[in-house]
Amino acid sequence: MRVLIVGVDGYIGWSLAMYLAKRGHRVSGIDNGTRRIRVEEGGSGSAIPLPSMEHRQFAFNEANPDLELSVGRLDVVHYGDLCRYLQDFDPQAVVHLGEIPSAPYSMRGYNHIATNYENNVIGTLSLLHAMHLECPNAALVKLGTMGTYGTPNVPIPEGWFDCTIDGHTDRLMFPHKPSSWYHATKCCDSTNVEYACRLWGLAATDIHQGVVYGTRTDEMLSDELRTRFDFDSDFGTAINRFVAQAVIESEITPYGIGGQRRGFIALRDSIQCLTLAIENQGHNGEYRVFNQFEEVYQLDELAALVSKTAKEFGLNPVVRHVDNPRMEAESHFYEPAHKHLLDLGYKPTTDMQQQLRHMIEDLMPHRDRILKYKEAISPSVTWR
Amino acid sequence: MRVLIVGVDGYIGWSLAMYLAKRGHRVSGIDNGTRRIRVEEGGSGSAIPLPSMEHRQFAFNEANPDLELSVGRLDVVHYGDLCRYLQDFDPQAVVHLGEIPSAPYSMRGYNHIATNYENNVIGTLSLLHAMHLECPNAALVKLGTMGTYGTPNVPIPEGWFDCTIDGHTDRLMFPHKPSSWYHATKCCDSTNVEYACRLWGLAATDIHQGVVYGTRTDEMLSDELRTRFDFDSDFGTAINRFVAQAVIESEITPYGIGGQRRGFIALRDSIQCLTLAIENQGHNGEYRVFNQFEEVYQLDELAALVSKTAKEFGLNPVVRHVDNPRMEAESHFYEPAHKHLLDLGYKPTTDMQQQLRHMIEDLMPHRDRILKYKEAISPSVTWR
Repeated sequence: MRVLIVGVDGYIGWSLAMYLAKRGHRVSGIDNGTRRIRVEEGGSGSAIPLPSMEHRQFAFNEANPDLELSVGRLDVVHYGDLCRYLQDFDPQAVVHLGEIPSAPYSMRGYNHIATNYENNVIGTLSLLHAMHLECPNAALVKLGTMGTYGTPNVPIPEGWFDCTIDGHTDRLMFPHKPSSWYHATKCCDSTNVEYACRLWGLAATDIHQGVVYGTRTDEMLSDELRTRFDFDSDFGTAINRFVAQAVIESEITPYGIGGQRRGFIALRDSIQCLTLAIENQGHNGEYRVFNQFEEVYQLDELAALVSKTAKEFGLNPVVRHVDNPRMEAESHFYEPAHKHLLDLGYKPTTDMQQQLRHMIEDLMPHRDRILKYKEAISPSVTWR
Repeated sequence: MRVLIVGVDGYIGWSLAMYLAKRGHRVSGIDNGTRRIRVEEGGSGSAIPLPSMEHRQFAFNEANPDLELSVGRLDVVHYGDLCRYLQDFDPQAVVHLGEIPSAPYSMRGYNHIATNYENNVIGTLSLLHAMHLECPNAALVKLGTMGTYGTPNVPIPEGWFDCTIDGHTDRLMFPHKPSSWYHATKCCDSTNVEYACRLWGLAATDIHQGVVYGTRTDEMLSDELRTRFDFDSDFGTAINRFVAQAVIESEITPYGIGGQRRGFIALRDSIQCLTLAIENQGHNGEYRVFNQFEEVYQLDELAALVSKTAKEFGLNPVVRHVDNPRMEAESHFYEPAHKHLLDLGYKPTTDMQQQLRHMIEDLMPHRDRILKYKEAISPSVTWR
């Protein structure tokens, strides 16, 4: 299948590109290259050193001369360029991972809010319209976030629910409730992608993903093929930050009382799930929502688990709860459904403890880099 | 009260500005001036001739030397300018009417979608952030649309509903379901305004307004003080278009079978309701939704009523159903609540029939202008 990956230079993007190419798909990736810049602007960098986008494509092609994987620089907000690109490559599936994925980054001030909306919401609108014109039968797999739902006091369905009012019933989108401007962009995206399905007969899967963690997939056979690993307070996810802290024996710092419950998934299983969505497309006009996570954990449990696992490696990090820079419930009901991917055959290939061990192994050689950017782990923006 | 009106050069904006000034409020209005340009670009113009924005402020000030009403050119997407303006005027209430209000306009292609999002969604984000910094205690009254809800098979509440799933209950935002990219911008706005209330303690009223119609408010005492009247297929609302068609004895053209049910409200009562929202502010952090309409009508009933009323004036327009350019249900359940404004004291001051008579009286002198732009009444863009 010809698969386009938007955001191929990202944490998931590059991992997915290699995985899909190995499965025999013809993979073309585009990226605007801004993730590296934004992390650097924030005074941090990937813990795992990265070759350039072009260099690692070259490394992959050299190691796999029979497979197809190409990457190029293109920003989806450049609508005309995007249309020409789609016309040329004629993808059968488009995976959209090209959004700015950080809540704290979006809370830095008006310019960051506007940048988030232009990159995420208008970028997605550009992609939707361009697909409608140039490849209307290609399926879209769009990365969203479980954060779209917030933490309601009711079980969270997968996108749709049966709404009953005064004896009348309709199947409606489950309401959105963002807790950052970044999350709000994902809510708007979901509204827009669902409408594009009704309007243009697009087949789309909106992946409401939990928190991803990990350093490794089976395709990362050489240093040049590793994916990025962010641990700064803007772009590092909770577990990735905790493990980076453990590796440098810094304090592990869950925010607030740490009772926040979230769904988590390992990078390698995120790749597996995205592939299931790509290879099992919905029908034209269908808007599917997959809640993509493996298990729900409480943040303070995870901090303790990271600390405990680190001890196996002779590390001795302590857990210290810090003031929560975010505005969020720190103790709440949380019961999200996640059945659709299991129905398609998703089988977790790993468990949290095993992944934590791999992460520590993979990060230990790069302690110096984490130490270099250590200051960037502490939150530098508050919600209030 | 110091009231800022964003979009003061519009149909509702100018009418509201005069009404509030007459009630003793200190009114300052801003506008980016694009409505006039967009209507002209579409080959049409206001049926009622308009002086410039500055000229009509001058006319109002001359007739009312003791009242305060000033207007200025400013686009809310220019964040820095907007902040300085808010700092200077220090409003106690901000009424945001400054959005592009047309579904067909938004369906013309990618550039129009992007323009809609930049003007509406990013403009509102700019306003929210600027208010947070410069006038955090000012209440926001934001114009939305009943179209945010679509036409679900359940009664439509006012913004919030009690959601019960598996025995758990939470009060959640009622789900959005847009039927054009314009409507989608309003859905995104609602998501963002609600979040700004939680995040920054903003007091906001999201007005989900039905279809507005009419030519007249009590403040329009001279020709120079009239508000604009659009009848083109992009910016003219259903009744306004029908009456314009009747006045030139053209066919009255409801779309499709005409069974679409919508809430309607006369311009003078829209002004009354907006004023109730402004003068009865919610508390800080509260996100209120008012469904603002007087009565639900079916479009083919309205077409017949316009035709019948026109006959009183010796006009003889016939009703002809035309292909529906939109993608919408043409026969559906529709039961929206509209209680909040009645609770605040809203009393309809007019009925549809009386308004239709006034409209025909007001438009007859401008038959030539309607004839001049007659071609623009027919839809020139389809949803499919």
